[in-house]
Amino acid sequence: MSRFLSSEAKRLDPYTPGEQPRDQKYIKLNTNESPFPPSPKVLEALSRAEAEKLCLYSDPTCAALNAAIAKRCGLRPENVISGNGSDEILAFAFRAFCGEGRGAAFADITYGFYEAQTALFGLEARRVPLREDFSLNVEDYLDFPGTVVIANPNAPTGMTVPVPEIRRLLETNRDRVVVVDEAYVDFGAESCVPLVREYENLLVTQTMSKSRSLAGGRVGFALGSAELIADLNRVKYSFNPYNVNRLSLLAGAAAVEDEEYFQSCCRAVRDTRAWTMEALEARGFTVLPSSANFIFAKSNRVPGGELYRRLKENGILVRWFDKDRIRDLCRITIGSKEQMEALTEQIDRLLAGT
Amino acid sequence: MSRFLSSEAKRLDPYTPGEQPRDQKYIKLNTNESPFPPSPKVLEALSRAEAEKLCLYSDPTCAALNAAIAKRCGLRPENVISGNGSDEILAFAFRAFCGEGRGAAFADITYGFYEAQTALFGLEARRVPLREDFSLNVEDYLDFPGTVVIANPNAPTGMTVPVPEIRRLLETNRDRVVVVDEAYVDFGAESCVPLVREYENLLVTQTMSKSRSLAGGRVGFALGSAELIADLNRVKYSFNPYNVNRLSLLAGAAAVEDEEYFQSCCRAVRDTRAWTMEALEARGFTVLPSSANFIFAKSNRVPGGELYRRLKENGILVRWFDKDRIRDLCRITIGSKEQMEALTEQIDRLLAGT
Repeated sequence: MSRFLSSEAKRLDPYTPGEQPRDQKYIKLNTNESPFPPSPKVLEALSRAEAEKLCLYSDPTCAALNAAIAKRCGLRPENVISGNGSDEILAFAFRAFCGEGRGAAFADITYGFYEAQTALFGLEARRVPLREDFSLNVEDYLDFPGTVVIANPNAPTGMTVPVPEIRRLLETNRDRVVVVDEAYVDFGAESCVPLVREYENLLVTQTMSKSRSLAGGRVGFALGSAELIADLNRVKYSFNPYNVNRLSLLAGAAAVEDEEYFQSCCRAVRDTRAWTMEALEARGFTVLPSSANFIFAKSNRVPGGELYRRLKENGILVRWFDKDRIRDLCRITIGSKEQMEALTEQIDRLLAGT
Repeated sequence: MSRFLSSEAKRLDPYTPGEQPRDQKYIKLNTNESPFPPSPKVLEALSRAEAEKLCLYSDPTCAALNAAIAKRCGLRPENVISGNGSDEILAFAFRAFCGEGRGAAFADITYGFYEAQTALFGLEARRVPLREDFSLNVEDYLDFPGTVVIANPNAPTGMTVPVPEIRRLLETNRDRVVVVDEAYVDFGAESCVPLVREYENLLVTQTMSKSRSLAGGRVGFALGSAELIADLNRVKYSFNPYNVNRLSLLAGAAAVEDEEYFQSCCRAVRDTRAWTMEALEARGFTVLPSSANFIFAKSNRVPGGELYRRLKENGILVRWFDKDRIRDLCRITIGSKEQMEALTEQIDRLLAGT
């Protein structure tokens, strides 16, 4: 920290991304990436001819990408904004809809980035405890006057809020924005996208990092009423007009257009998730019900921190949060079947040694 | 604008990027892009094998790219931060070093983004008029207690501040940060990068959008003391940890390593700039002395707005700012020799008709 750091920046609470150690080769089950490469259509789109055009700026309006997303979601391009990952879009939303005296509410156990981003804009954050079983009670949010942010499915739990509950949240107070972060929705949860046409106070964010195998391409997007999207563009053009690069625009559009590949990847993740949950439960684990491409699990014999460390020593990375309420659990990404078999073998060895 | 927009976001003053019309094919001399494709080494780096890895997140620390930049600049990796274009880095700097009671000062005629970004964080902005001849007087900034931002060369003028003057600015008040935005430095201005080791209050930003033909790849970076860079990372990890995508990391590193190609592109731009300045002056234009890949020029017969419109009607886009003090001028990017010949031919036709 330099002596020039502003008091506003001192109050920041930066996010810690999942580790990416380089000392050895790991089976990476710690950042919820897809075990599958991007669609062959994405690889085709990233041609040498397109790379040669990198001397030209990308389209700041992201027109082709937004049109592809809109078509796939049954909406219009003016209902879509694309970003450098959905993290960027979430930041735009906090700036657009929150301010002095108008903070944001989110769960105590959820994506750590909401906390970091509210601090970025000096916003008041209300952390609402999940129930004991990690389910979210929408009653807790009904009175809150500011922006409500709900990850659905939630991370790191993988658990969902039923869409009728979110509808209730939208209807109870139509004077506030409800952001539903659907980063993991494609792995088995019901989406709120069909509600976009009904509620002008709903913003749904999604990402291509997980179900579309483009984590390294950084493409996220949000869906909402044309007015909400215009607000987000107002922030974008004050921050970084050319926020999505040329190749990511192409990759994103190609990924959205390959429905078959997308469905087959999601199906494989769901199948492997079911297999993994069963395998872990057979080994004495408690696994939260997951609709995401990860599971949140607790061994009846090895504490969370120890499980994380022992797996890492043996070449498998999972994510452990040294945080109240969830210190006993580990978040494990659903990788390929082979990777999950390697995980269970390692757990067998570990349990045999305890 | 929706009724949910916060009062903070209402006060934003979004930047308008150079137009990218799609109704016909234009000679684009309006966004200061390079007329040359990226280095062949960049094209090689963007292989199919790398595209297949897009399912994995990019390295949030940008280690390989930062190392390549550091090596090229004679600094250490901890003196470098990379971003999704230098626009992003500038936003990080405003958040890191400014705040309540600690605003930013910049020229009245300069890159429009400083204005937009100070508004993003609700900062006080002092706009300091350039001299009548558009040169910058550092005296005007000596007393300012907040962050000083100087584009050097400046946009849209192309004019420079001599490095000893910037040194004076750094020395007069060592308790404030001076940001030198060197987006255009490679086309003939002296860089402040060698001063980074001397002054802990200096931050130099650069971009690969212009001299390295990567506008569409979105790679910018900043150089400063390890402490200043740590401050910027604090903001980055509160905003978007994976801010640079995988392919841009590779493209950026390859571009920095191809010194020969870089030098030949810069040389070609300088040669074409000299040719264009002479050609325009021969046609009665006044051209400001430019050290950038654009010139700022005024006809003695056609007003700026009309020149812009007439060129556009004839398939050539230049940039015109409908703004006090510079309404008479057009900013013209230095394209290829052929493009500049097309420009002068068009101007000849236009002048013959007046």
